[in-house]
Amino acid sequence: MIGVGMTEFGRHPERSLTDMGREACWRALKDAGIHPKQIQAGFSGNSLAPYLQREVDIGQPILREVGIVGIPILNISNACASGSCAFREAWLAVASGLYELVIAVGTEKAFVGKGAMLDIGSQDFQLMQGGVFPGDFALKARRHMLEFGTTKEQLAKISVKNHKNGCLNAYSQFKKEFTVEEVLNSPMVADPLTVLSCCPNSDGSAATIIASKDLAKRYCEKPIRIAASALRSGTYEPNRNLALFDLDFEASKIAYEISGYDPQDIDVAEVHDAFTIAEIMHYEGLGFCKLGEGGRLIDEGETEIGGRIPVNPSGGLLSRGHPVGATGLAQIAEIVWQLRGETGKRQVENARIGLAHVVGGGREGDVGAGTIHILARD
Amino acid sequence: MIGVGMTEFGRHPERSLTDMGREACWRALKDAGIHPKQIQAGFSGNSLAPYLQREVDIGQPILREVGIVGIPILNISNACASGSCAFREAWLAVASGLYELVIAVGTEKAFVGKGAMLDIGSQDFQLMQGGVFPGDFALKARRHMLEFGTTKEQLAKISVKNHKNGCLNAYSQFKKEFTVEEVLNSPMVADPLTVLSCCPNSDGSAATIIASKDLAKRYCEKPIRIAASALRSGTYEPNRNLALFDLDFEASKIAYEISGYDPQDIDVAEVHDAFTIAEIMHYEGLGFCKLGEGGRLIDEGETEIGGRIPVNPSGGLLSRGHPVGATGLAQIAEIVWQLRGETGKRQVENARIGLAHVVGGGREGDVGAGTIHILARD
Repeated sequence: MIGVGMTEFGRHPERSLTDMGREACWRALKDAGIHPKQIQAGFSGNSLAPYLQREVDIGQPILREVGIVGIPILNISNACASGSCAFREAWLAVASGLYELVIAVGTEKAFVGKGAMLDIGSQDFQLMQGGVFPGDFALKARRHMLEFGTTKEQLAKISVKNHKNGCLNAYSQFKKEFTVEEVLNSPMVADPLTVLSCCPNSDGSAATIIASKDLAKRYCEKPIRIAASALRSGTYEPNRNLALFDLDFEASKIAYEISGYDPQDIDVAEVHDAFTIAEIMHYEGLGFCKLGEGGRLIDEGETEIGGRIPVNPSGGLLSRGHPVGATGLAQIAEIVWQLRGETGKRQVENARIGLAHVVGGGREGDVGAGTIHILARD
Repeated sequence: MIGVGMTEFGRHPERSLTDMGREACWRALKDAGIHPKQIQAGFSGNSLAPYLQREVDIGQPILREVGIVGIPILNISNACASGSCAFREAWLAVASGLYELVIAVGTEKAFVGKGAMLDIGSQDFQLMQGGVFPGDFALKARRHMLEFGTTKEQLAKISVKNHKNGCLNAYSQFKKEFTVEEVLNSPMVADPLTVLSCCPNSDGSAATIIASKDLAKRYCEKPIRIAASALRSGTYEPNRNLALFDLDFEASKIAYEISGYDPQDIDVAEVHDAFTIAEIMHYEGLGFCKLGEGGRLIDEGETEIGGRIPVNPSGGLLSRGHPVGATGLAQIAEIVWQLRGETGKRQVENARIGLAHVVGGGREGDVGAGTIHILARD
């Protein structure tokens, strides 16, 4: 990888998808120091534009804005993993030898009116009964608390940590610190998850440039290597344990195997903290601690910047924000900046290997797509 | 390729996307003689479900219906080329060595009420002015008539040929023959294009199984080889010539180069006849005749079954129907059946090399994505 770029995440009612995508692409191209005409293929991740903005296939108009036309362009959707799946197809296009220089961009306008997204997947049986995401994750939280003694305070500490980190990130939607009490006392969404325990809906875009090994060395002093790309869908087990993410265990096993690294090697991670409980469960699924010990990990400060395995130094979905199709590529951008040592006050010291993790979608209570990418500075 | 399958195309208001996708996948799996659990990755093409049915990421629920879960599943959109792009990513996943056995499925419910699709891409400047597809292709037709002397009768003959072929295809939406006069006298949509000069909106699904060379030989006596996959987006030239499809010339050049075949080698083709004029322009863009000679080609019967280069023996979009995200894979299925010699009365004698061609989408008058796949029986 030779370049990354993103827009500020947040509420941008005045900006179009095309406008935000253009900014992210332009920044990535500038960061890579290449001309748009050099790009051989484009991959665009978006989840909700056809649904919310009545726009289909936004990849072509976004890339056209930076002068990228007449090449293969693909539009990819996989819920929250739309951006990371665009990244994965871009990686495969280069890793396979088909192309030498490609761009992946993820863009979303998800900051919409209350209830505007409630009928997504409305033919789904569980959704008809009111099984929307906050409720689903509240059930997971309850089960985790029951099985492992995880506390509301531990959940709240995830939000506190990520909001603290988000204050150090110019791209963050929220730049405000909160206390455990403030998180616990914010309005209840689905017990035990309060408003400050849930990520926001956001607008934004992020992009990245992937080059073949030879080209990367020519254009970049410190290219970042993609050490593993893993994608898995849910198994839809009817009797699965709500207290763990099967998908994490399976996808991370693949990612560690391909990369040759193990959880102890990871210096910094961006993890899909759509809800506070999710980050705790992902600690366990990614092998950062044993099953049931996620609460202890946050208690002991191990996932803070300066801890053993800093998680979401960017602020994560909770603070940086969550423009669905952009999130996966924003994570990748953060890891790249961390590995290059360019993140200022939120820098994880001497980070050499990073992990980006997304889970997205889900029908009948299980997860539609999960990706893990491991990036390395050699 | 070791298996293909599809549903009957047409009006299926009683069937869900999942139900149609299941049928196509099941038929493809049965055709290949493999068990769903053997599939290593899935690629789903769909264009309009988030927009029309409020359903996002239909690949996972479709594949779950045939027991395919827990593997990498990707949802792909590229307008009319959604299905063919899902096929392309499936091909790359195998050709790169990443997987050995994958499925691609395309599904759409596009038979909807009048006007239900008129606001797609409604932020597009030309669309705001009323520049919908029939109008756009009417302009192309007018320009082609002006530049090359193409006649309304020649346009109508495309519809006559494809409806005649469609009568021989059990999967067709329309199984009725029409005369040139009937096509010309059917209600006007956008002069010179009448209703019978435009493809219908349709519901349906199609699927295909791709295996590595070694596996294919083990599972199949007559595997079909993917000799080339080409994808291009539009160049958005403001002063382009309306009478020709730039994209066809560029994509076919790549496809012929990769495959080592040239237009004279193609025994049978499925071509994106969304409008009668489109098929004539694609004859030229694909090199089946010289620029401006498309009208002559249909006049001389060269593209009929039994002619020099039969085009759309399936009935094409005009007669088999056009469930947007399924069309590309239905073309692939038809070519596979033709190359295997399994198409009965519409069989192109001794077909050995086939071509499938889609163009889709388009903003500001140009085309968003075009694919060409060349398939061969060795």
